[in-house]
Amino acid sequence: MGYYSPSIEKLIEAFEKLPSIGNKTAARLAFHILNASEAETNEFIEAITNAKKNLKYCSNCYNITDTDPCPICGNASRDQSIICVVEDVKDVVAMERTHEFKGVYHVLHGVVSPMNGVGPDDIKIKELLARLMDGHVKEIVLATNPRVEGEATAMYISKLVKPLGIKATRIAHGIPVGGDLEFTDEVTLSKALEGRREL
Amino acid sequence: MGYYSPSIEKLIEAFEKLPSIGNKTAARLAFHILNASEAETNEFIEAITNAKKNLKYCSNCYNITDTDPCPICGNASRDQSIICVVEDVKDVVAMERTHEFKGVYHVLHGVVSPMNGVGPDDIKIKELLARLMDGHVKEIVLATNPRVEGEATAMYISKLVKPLGIKATRIAHGIPVGGDLEFTDEVTLSKALEGRREL
Repeated sequence: MGYYSPSIEKLIEAFEKLPSIGNKTAARLAFHILNASEAETNEFIEAITNAKKNLKYCSNCYNITDTDPCPICGNASRDQSIICVVEDVKDVVAMERTHEFKGVYHVLHGVVSPMNGVGPDDIKIKELLARLMDGHVKEIVLATNPRVEGEATAMYISKLVKPLGIKATRIAHGIPVGGDLEFTDEVTLSKALEGRREL
Repeated sequence: MGYYSPSIEKLIEAFEKLPSIGNKTAARLAFHILNASEAETNEFIEAITNAKKNLKYCSNCYNITDTDPCPICGNASRDQSIICVVEDVKDVVAMERTHEFKGVYHVLHGVVSPMNGVGPDDIKIKELLARLMDGHVKEIVLATNPRVEGEATAMYISKLVKPLGIKATRIAHGIPVGGDLEFTDEVTLSKALEGRREL
């Protein structure tokens, strides 16, 4: 707009680039930062730089983590013979909130979606198959979102996995169809996990 | 919540401290930053550090600025004999958007509010009076928000100013009572400015 000083304009623009932040919110956030103490500002910047510096993908399950392997893969009390396959890092958190699942995870980082030009090689399916090769895994729970692409990806993986003698299950449609795992409450997700069926 | 890695948790918490950002939005912003390129992240951090480093208050009008005096006070084509008195830096921007006001500003940084323990000495009233002493100023336009405190502050300043032989005007109630200058459209604000009356 050009009515603010250049440094504020730039700060407002920086906030506007963030998702779901409009011009008015960006201005409010910018003025909040301007009025914040030096210590608060440094804390904010450090949180960003540390996150960017420390976080990596777990070389086993591809969850995002400060340590490799991630705390879930490295936890001896988790059942390594059952793998829950999810689309996204946020879905791991959604599953963990149920306190029902004691196995480990595999994050696909997407779903097969020919419409968007995403093929099986573009997501972590090869890496999942590699984990199944040593014969320790007995079941994979396919917990992709109950949308067209999520269902197709689950079907695709189940067909790859069956010849290996591994059970492939799909979480039940307790989740409203078209919904988002990330925003599903714990009880519904628990039910969905409980009612899983073999594909 | 403890389901994410420590560095993400901290980043989410950092975003949650910002005004009007809840837990879900904070998580979305955090993951946006994690997925952003190094260049984008540095740009964001630079916008914050530059804003904190470069911005100061104009020693004349107390608007926030990269340069002192601010571009408005330093603009020879602005009429220095008429001062528009506003509560907040954002109100200067709101007034500028009207393209109607050719004078200069004075930012009070608050309003007199006994309920909140804010007295006349806690806002930039002394500094306003100092600007009036050289006899160049002919009119002050009191553009505080049309709320109880804003009205009281305008009345208070008008009483201080009248003995000096300076005209004190109040912007018209074109702005809905209880509203916010910051969120008023240009046309309404223009009308309010046009219909200003002497106190």
